[in-house]
Amino acid sequence: MSLEKKLRARAEATDSLLCVGLDPVEGGELAAWGINIISQTHPYVCAFKPNLAFYEAQGQQGLAALEATLEYLRAEHPDIPIIGDAKRGDIGSTSEAHARYLFDHFGFDAVTLNPYLGYDSLAPFIEREDKGSIIVCRTSNPGADEFQMLEVEGTPLWERILAVVAEQWNTRGNCSAVIGATRPDDLRRARKIVGPEMIFLVPGVGAQGGDVEAVVRAGVGEKAGNTSAFGNLVINSSRGITNSPDPSRTAEKLRNQIKEATPTVRRERPL
Amino acid sequence: MSLEKKLRARAEATDSLLCVGLDPVEGGELAAWGINIISQTHPYVCAFKPNLAFYEAQGQQGLAALEATLEYLRAEHPDIPIIGDAKRGDIGSTSEAHARYLFDHFGFDAVTLNPYLGYDSLAPFIEREDKGSIIVCRTSNPGADEFQMLEVEGTPLWERILAVVAEQWNTRGNCSAVIGATRPDDLRRARKIVGPEMIFLVPGVGAQGGDVEAVVRAGVGEKAGNTSAFGNLVINSSRGITNSPDPSRTAEKLRNQIKEATPTVRRERPL
Repeated sequence: MSLEKKLRARAEATDSLLCVGLDPVEGGELAAWGINIISQTHPYVCAFKPNLAFYEAQGQQGLAALEATLEYLRAEHPDIPIIGDAKRGDIGSTSEAHARYLFDHFGFDAVTLNPYLGYDSLAPFIEREDKGSIIVCRTSNPGADEFQMLEVEGTPLWERILAVVAEQWNTRGNCSAVIGATRPDDLRRARKIVGPEMIFLVPGVGAQGGDVEAVVRAGVGEKAGNTSAFGNLVINSSRGITNSPDPSRTAEKLRNQIKEATPTVRRERPL
Repeated sequence: MSLEKKLRARAEATDSLLCVGLDPVEGGELAAWGINIISQTHPYVCAFKPNLAFYEAQGQQGLAALEATLEYLRAEHPDIPIIGDAKRGDIGSTSEAHARYLFDHFGFDAVTLNPYLGYDSLAPFIEREDKGSIIVCRTSNPGADEFQMLEVEGTPLWERILAVVAEQWNTRGNCSAVIGATRPDDLRRARKIVGPEMIFLVPGVGAQGGDVEAVVRAGVGEKAGNTSAFGNLVINSSRGITNSPDPSRTAEKLRNQIKEATPTVRRERPL
């Protein structure tokens, strides 16, 4: 099943556009930590997004914990898509090795990727039709403008890259884009550039300060009422949920907040 | 000791600008493979560059082999700088985790990094003054032009990024740049932009077809005769050496080829 179908099915089943990011920072029992978060929040999510860096930082033990977490997730909730947050991107032979690691060894349904080296550097990912390639276009960090806003023929660089992804790279319909939540106007621009179909992974809600309602209104866009637009946003919160006193309740609230913010026509559809 | 000092000392001791890249692809005994390559080629190198992707692709076993290889290298050849080829780059908290993994867990002297997210995304690396941050600016893959040659205020994007690295990011003198070997004219431009001091890591000689003499002449630049210019090029070959029938002899030949190609004034200096 393609990422898009799996994601849409899950989003409709839980009435949720919420993705919970797994960024373990505490040390100690990382697998137990992840399994606890998953068991508390799964009824309210359309996806989980483990961030490899936080597991890698704990060395072999951390990576074993990631494997155990993924094993649990696939066994208990095989219908939940898993996004590997890895931001990889390198020349072809190296990217082939990355794709084997992320898609075959870990079995992620989708991964985040860096576009700077161009299409051929990401081809080993994008050619995997059953998997999602989520290209980092516009990020939520304070210094994102430094290069992403450089003007290329009258257009910010990130918009140019997004347009290339949408118009040239996405021939298999399995490309998505990372568009940060902290700048809703950019999310609106992004939706306009790619049309209603492409899935955006939107990090930066919660701990990084992105406003939920603004994000939903800007990102889902005008065609929110049709089925194809539903599921085209994956709104990620990591520490905002996992560090809260009651992750289950926090996830449910954020799921509902996202739901409330979607245009009326969307809410009227049976799910 | 800073990367620059360690690299220069080693380059002068072996009269070599050659870096041997460790990209194991065979499967099987990765640690034994790496240790064999190191023991055969170390007299001719200024650095080794393990590429994490190829170890990761073998899962936990591959990463254990990387650790064993690094342990051997540090014990037997503590004076050889080790560059972790990882191409990381993410928002701040994730980059902090990456820096812990690469600098503290693996103990690399330098790592390769992707600039697309801007300075703050790489600050956790660059603020480590004792370590080298090698920023990917101009790559050697066939599709590198797609974004790197986009025109920004009359300048190719990659040149703009390199100039920002040299003029704004390199306040501690520990930033270097990746400039691919397959386009010597770009290497010449790059040297002009940053001046004689900054170290370039130059992949793409050998298997990827970069011409050694052209690379040296373009990359070392006019000031090749002074000590500060020597050691400002690290020319990497991976499969060209490691897949050859006699890696020791191949490394020696390439080291000598690089030496021959340096301007006369350089060869006249005692080493």
